[in-house]
Amino acid sequence: MRIIQKRTGHFLEDFRPGSMLRHKGGKTLTEGLFTTFTEFSMTSNALAKNARFARAHGFDGLVCPPGLVMLVAFSQTVEDVSENARTNLEYIDMRFGAPVYIGDTIEAETKVLGVRASKSRPDLGIVHVQSTARKNVGARDEAVVLTWQRKVQVFKLDASARLHEGEVEPDTIECDLWLPAYDPSRDYKVLAHLSSRDSYFEDLEPGTRIEHSRGRTVTDEHIHLTAVLDNTSQVHCNQFMIDRDPERYAGGRLIVFGGIPFTLCLGLSCPDVGDNALGDRVYRTGQHTAPLFAGDTVFASTEILARRDHVQRTDLGLVETRLRGHKFERDAGAEHPDAPPGWKRTQIFELERELVVKRRSHY
Amino acid sequence: MRIIQKRTGHFLEDFRPGSMLRHKGGKTLTEGLFTTFTEFSMTSNALAKNARFARAHGFDGLVCPPGLVMLVAFSQTVEDVSENARTNLEYIDMRFGAPVYIGDTIEAETKVLGVRASKSRPDLGIVHVQSTARKNVGARDEAVVLTWQRKVQVFKLDASARLHEGEVEPDTIECDLWLPAYDPSRDYKVLAHLSSRDSYFEDLEPGTRIEHSRGRTVTDEHIHLTAVLDNTSQVHCNQFMIDRDPERYAGGRLIVFGGIPFTLCLGLSCPDVGDNALGDRVYRTGQHTAPLFAGDTVFASTEILARRDHVQRTDLGLVETRLRGHKFERDAGAEHPDAPPGWKRTQIFELERELVVKRRSHY
Amino acid sequence: MRIIQKRTGHFLEDFRPGSMLRHKGGKTLTEGLFTTFTEFSMTSNALAKNARFARAHGFDGLVCPPGLVMLVAFSQTVEDVSENARTNLEYIDMRFGAPVYIGDTIEAETKVLGVRASKSRPDLGIVHVQSTARKNVGARDEAVVLTWQRKVQVFKLDASARLHEGEVEPDTIECDLWLPAYDPSRDYKVLAHLSSRDSYFEDLEPGTRIEHSRGRTVTDEHIHLTAVLDNTSQVHCNQFMIDRDPERYAGGRLIVFGGIPFTLCLGLSCPDVGDNALGDRVYRTGQHTAPLFAGDTVFASTEILARRDHVQRTDLGLVETRLRGHKFERDAGAEHPDAPPGWKRTQIFELERELVVKRRSHY
Repeated sequence: MRIIQKRTGHFLEDFRPGSMLRHKGGKTLTEGLFTTFTEFSMTSNALAKNARFARAHGFDGLVCPPGLVMLVAFSQTVEDVSENARTNLEYIDMRFGAPVYIGDTIEAETKVLGVRASKSRPDLGIVHVQSTARKNVGARDEAVVLTWQRKVQVFKLDASARLHEGEVEPDTIECDLWLPAYDPSRDYKVLAHLSSRDSYFEDLEPGTRIEHSRGRTVTDEHIHLTAVLDNTSQVHCNQFMIDRDPERYAGGRLIVFGGIPFTLCLGLSCPDVGDNALGDRVYRTGQHTAPLFAGDTVFASTEILARRDHVQRTDLGLVETRLRGHKFERDAGAEHPDAPPGWKRTQIFELERELVVKRRSHY
Repeated sequence: MRIIQKRTGHFLEDFRPGSMLRHKGGKTLTEGLFTTFTEFSMTSNALAKNARFARAHGFDGLVCPPGLVMLVAFSQTVEDVSENARTNLEYIDMRFGAPVYIGDTIEAETKVLGVRASKSRPDLGIVHVQSTARKNVGARDEAVVLTWQRKVQVFKLDASARLHEGEVEPDTIECDLWLPAYDPSRDYKVLAHLSSRDSYFEDLEPGTRIEHSRGRTVTDEHIHLTAVLDNTSQVHCNQFMIDRDPERYAGGRLIVFGGIPFTLCLGLSCPDVGDNALGDRVYRTGQHTAPLFAGDTVFASTEILARRDHVQRTDLGLVETRLRGHKFERDAGAEHPDAPPGWKRTQIFELERELVVKRRSHY
Repeated sequence: MRIIQKRTGHFLEDFRPGSMLRHKGGKTLTEGLFTTFTEFSMTSNALAKNARFARAHGFDGLVCPPGLVMLVAFSQTVEDVSENARTNLEYIDMRFGAPVYIGDTIEAETKVLGVRASKSRPDLGIVHVQSTARKNVGARDEAVVLTWQRKVQVFKLDASARLHEGEVEPDTIECDLWLPAYDPSRDYKVLAHLSSRDSYFEDLEPGTRIEHSRGRTVTDEHIHLTAVLDNTSQVHCNQFMIDRDPERYAGGRLIVFGGIPFTLCLGLSCPDVGDNALGDRVYRTGQHTAPLFAGDTVFASTEILARRDHVQRTDLGLVETRLRGHKFERDAGAEHPDAPPGWKRTQIFELERELVVKRRSHY
């Protein structure tokens, strides 16, 4: 009996700058996945919860919230890009395009932009990629739904293997947020009580930091949530792998997939900054700044950095924000200005986020 | 940078008798939510499991079981009524109306009936409300699906704030259980093997207490289940809030949302009293009598209190019951008549429940 | 008040060889159930994930993976056959028929083939049954989807009760795997990047054992997963029952429902042997060889036993395999050839599995 030890996903030495990876699988967005994640994220935007509200705004039905679009698209790239990663370093220029509805099928591809060895650890290096997700390929409504770059720290399989180091230019990908037309004959105000009263464009003042009120404890549910997304990265779900060699992994524990705090921070911030957004336009950059583990409680805050008119749309405005996630860790005896006595606040996530927000004057 | 500490939901001092709260969000019932809760509850009524069975009885498709209708409707009111509650005290006159199907959108509103300070605790008081949930507002099939009153113990934000104490009359809300017509030309008996044989109207004898056979351990899955319902009450999901000040919260732990044992007790009782019900008509009163925590195993029993003819329907009868939930707690060395040696039985829930049940003579 | 202690399901003394059990409930397959299990299982076959891919192969839409068909069908039989079982001993001649789609309703019936007392334990015995699941009974597309035999170890309610021992012949059940026609005018190759490159018929060489790369830790999520299937066996979900009398139950803990590792092993093996299968034809025999508990990490391997032509289909071939599941247990100081130092490998599951696999030459 010949024994084949299978390896899934690419290791650092497999990546070549300039090569294209067409990802396997694809994913049809069912009502099951939609509900699991939309509700997990605690989003409160009625476009994702109330089909009557969504249709009245000109969408075809319930709209996938941006966190779920990101999770589904991103996860399609995991096997090829980050199944053998240690950690995700940075999201860059993540732009949203067509809305995603229940029933849409998402497929993704990735261009390898760069490969670089780690200076300090011979078993690791950094891969830089550009990924694009499309919906309903081959159908009349085929469209780009998300494009983004990311940098990820990937393990080598063979520490002595030669790398294909280098960097190439990203492709130009057309991907602009689709927005339903404003129709003055519609009575939007009859639905206004379904979204929060103080999160219109007029309310979001630059120079403000909003500490969002809710917290959410993440349990080992994260293992299931990650699997539901087809994210197969073993550091999220293979306890035996960790137990064999805990030193090798961040925190010596199963780490929560970064997409979980990503979408949860978007949701926790929603009542205060997202309830009256028609969509997120771009995430210029984002990072996970500390690991999250089962049992941690996630909180979020948003800084309003700037706002400006939307040149084609007098009913909307653009708001630039910095979304941060944090958790509290025990720190006996200490006093920190932003934490209760005996605790310290640890930032876990940061995202430069631009939203397209309704004006109260029009809705 | 100006810092805004957001507060979500109302505190005791915010409630005014007579005022109306139109709740945000609304909720379209997806197949994801339907399955998660219908199956979690362990309901065995084939109306909620088998579309062929449901259609043969005159429904449009799978029918939301009463526990799920209650959970979805109730949860819509949580942010405004009980996000800052300590505990829910009583359900009163909860009446069911139109059936709820997958795809229906539920929206809810609440009238504040009363506000009262606590005699013993200056940081707490009791709010009395009347809520009504409608489906498909503005559409041809708009209908009331549930109306109910409840009393809830709510925290003050500012212990010295003045309250708007008082009590007003409830509104008259038309809400009667919709029932599909009985059609003698249909061969109901061909489907009779799909429901239990001993739970027809004729079987449910007043003066009987049925100890239902199954138990179900609730895990920390309750955090996710609660979030899926849009129930944002922090005592169910924010472990850090508890850890900061455990004395303040019942049991010093995350408490399981009362809707979870509510729907689970309905489900556990289903094979014995609900399998041949076409619906639940009214819950006259209900209370949580002890808290439930992750790790507890829930059991249920039903007392058959009375039964009577349904005046317009010879194929159906009305059955009044008292549904109780309980768990067992270790009690070393003790002997209790209703528990194994070394354990005691703790009642957690009680509900006066009236069902509309098929007669074996007709089905 | 007369007290009735309800018992659900049959005990050993209730079974009579030759009798037919028509199971209650039935189950309409929603998108919620489909997603929960398809993704939990980690299947990577695009027929179950990508509706465009499934339709291009001639299916009506997303196709239920074999593990989910088995779980839904099997669970319908649990209340009557194994609610009061100690353990499931063997699966025999499990054959697949029509494809199952979202929206289909499954109903099942079981013939009791044999009853036998245990030689060593007077409170136990073995029941041998033959079950068949059909979809959409009474509709134009009514079809058998699965038929199988199993042997299960069932508790007696009354240790002194007389058994109906004996054995009868199984019925002949027509159940052959439905396959979509091969259409040379279709450009299958345009979709080939969506499935794995090295799992075509030509790749699966007899005499090979593939150690699949991924592991998946099972948490107490298993309680919810089991309930979602309508599997009411108390050994999976009633912690109090275990705590009262731990000696009585395997491992003295809640045991994970065997269907969970069954479907998970199918999924873990999928990228290497199932990605290009159009279906599973038959599981000749299968067994759980050790119990699985929350916290264990499941791995899988596949031996390729034989392969042969499909007589009617030049585009396909038949592959006979032995799928095994295993976990690792700590074994301080020991050295085992198939486990890291300090660990031993424990087999948990074994299945003789025949797949119908696409040939690279045609797809």
